Amino acid sequence: MPEYVHGGDVYSYAERYGGEPLDLSANISSFGIPERVRQAMHRAIEDCARYPDPFCRAARRAIGAAEAVPDGFLYCGNGAADVLDRLAAALRPRRALLTAPAFAEYERTLAGADIRFHYLREDEGFAVTERILSDITPETDVVYLCNPNNPTGRTVEPALLRAVAARCADAGARLIVDECFVDFLQDAARHTLKGLLAGSPHLILLRAYTKLFAVPGVRFGWCMTADVGLIEALYRAGQPWNVSVVAQACAAAAAGEREWAARVAARIAEERARLSGGLAARGLAVCPGEANFLLFRSGDAALHEKLAARGVLIRNCANYRGLGAGYYRTAVRSGDDTARLFAALDAIRKEGC
Amino acid sequence: MPEYVHGGDVYSYAERYGGEPLDLSANISSFGIPERVRQAMHRAIEDCARYPDPFCRAARRAIGAAEAVPDGFLYCGNGAADVLDRLAAALRPRRALLTAPAFAEYERTLAGADIRFHYLREDEGFAVTERILSDITPETDVVYLCNPNNPTGRTVEPALLRAVAARCADAGARLIVDECFVDFLQDAARHTLKGLLAGSPHLILLRAYTKLFAVPGVRFGWCMTADVGLIEALYRAGQPWNVSVVAQACAAAAAGEREWAARVAARIAEERARLSGGLAARGLAVCPGEANFLLFRSGDAALHEKLAARGVLIRNCANYRGLGAGYYRTAVRSGDDTARLFAALDAIRKEGC
Repeated sequence: MPEYVHGGDVYSYAERYGGEPLDLSANISSFGIPERVRQAMHRAIEDCARYPDPFCRAARRAIGAAEAVPDGFLYCGNGAADVLDRLAAALRPRRALLTAPAFAEYERTLAGADIRFHYLREDEGFAVTERILSDITPETDVVYLCNPNNPTGRTVEPALLRAVAARCADAGARLIVDECFVDFLQDAARHTLKGLLAGSPHLILLRAYTKLFAVPGVRFGWCMTADVGLIEALYRAGQPWNVSVVAQACAAAAAGEREWAARVAARIAEERARLSGGLAARGLAVCPGEANFLLFRSGDAALHEKLAARGVLIRNCANYRGLGAGYYRTAVRSGDDTARLFAALDAIRKEGC
Repeated sequence: MPEYVHGGDVYSYAERYGGEPLDLSANISSFGIPERVRQAMHRAIEDCARYPDPFCRAARRAIGAAEAVPDGFLYCGNGAADVLDRLAAALRPRRALLTAPAFAEYERTLAGADIRFHYLREDEGFAVTERILSDITPETDVVYLCNPNNPTGRTVEPALLRAVAARCADAGARLIVDECFVDFLQDAARHTLKGLLAGSPHLILLRAYTKLFAVPGVRFGWCMTADVGLIEALYRAGQPWNVSVVAQACAAAAAGEREWAARVAARIAEERARLSGGLAARGLAVCPGEANFLLFRSGDAALHEKLAARGVLIRNCANYRGLGAGYYRTAVRSGDDTARLFAALDAIRKEGC
């Protein structure tokens, strides 16, 4: 089996340590699955004797209504990762521009492409700056931006993001903005490029309900674009039954939970401040992220191992391009989880191991 | 949206006619989901706040034990269709040999390959004969065989199938045998090539629980091969979280339902004889299939439309390569469903429309 490079691997933990860790290595809300979404999934089990709708009609109608985007602009996949696989297969870019660090799946799906990396700088707080504009050239076929970015949690300034979109249009490049964490922002409406879609067929926005609704096990993600030719190509880029009946029902129900989503995002924002302060007080260098996770740096390259031995999983970011040993990402969850992380960190410091 | 070319599209039916048809266009057991499998899926909903195991460890252990195949020989996907997509991406064959007619997804996944078709002949009952051996040449990279074949339901004689496997080995070709319907055979053990796996790293067997356990909406399929390098390539050929938590739990539970599976297969076999006789008595030319569906020919190229107007969906096979207008496939389900199909056929004949 190949090496697994992401967070959330509680299965390997169980094999190594036994039992269940506090998993802060995946960016999943600790507030669980909304009751109506849970009930919709249970009901959907009873519909599993039929094939899934290959065109996810009910889910697209619900999401389109919730997001105020035409449902014809939506393509749904087996998680955002499936949509990324299909985008790479449909677009077949010769040259791609990626930021580093960023979500590792972008690079994996682009095997064979000439990938250029725009390195984010720690001395700039890992922010995207105007430096990126000059890296977008007529040779660029596609630019991937994650906003807020995984693993830094930083957002791109809205004016700069619009300048990037305009620069991509001028250069004849597609712009894929991964907005999978945008709903965690306190000012999401300022940051999403949804409003540009209709006039920008080169723009593709990636979304998922995975994190906010705590359903990574269900597999549902989607993208939005005004390029309906691309949407048709995404349908053709793989099997027609990629999104399960349960996932489609989950998404249709989750689309109606806007209030619940706002409440969770507000609670995560409060907890993020507390977590950030506590990490800094413990001598860790915290990147000022705005999502439901925080990137931090420690002088201890084995901190993740020590925490795992104490039942707490964080994401070792040593394998992120543009980072290295000593960088870690932790999810922002409930106060109880924060307290357990702090206690484990304090115990490690106290015992010197 | 692209044209949908398969059976099971009850969603378009609902948009056109309203309500729910008797769906005989998808080959799904009418005996439903076994209770223990259903319960396992409901329990799994509560585990969906974690990512799926990227290596499907529990499901592979259960299937490996049930099939008496090492779990290291198994790769699980988001339905057999996902495994087909990944096989094509991992093998990247230059030249492929497919039978016609056969499941349309083989051809779709092989875009860019030089595909040669071995046409099955109606005057040979659409059987695979020794003619196929001479089509396997040193230029052949991969051969796809469906056994029993979709949409004919015919099996390959076991001795001939072994000769095909040997010929592929000699020619340096992979042999992919789609055994997704093998569990419906009364003598499945004679037909599966499972026993050859250990000594035949060029052999790949495709399976799914979709049809027998009535779970097409869940999405779970797998392949078996002794080529562990290929299995590693399959993991790398797409996202790591392709199989949902619900699907993994479903498969692990279904693997334990061998008695239930045998009982359903026996009932389907009885019903198939009754259905075949009734279709023949109505002047339809029935192909002697052995799976949970039957291919038949009618002089009426609009029969599927007339049946749909009466609430019965069958699979119009006009778009199968090697078939044409007037060919249809119907699922073999319970006696009640057979009676409804017969009644609709009789009514169409009586009214002359």
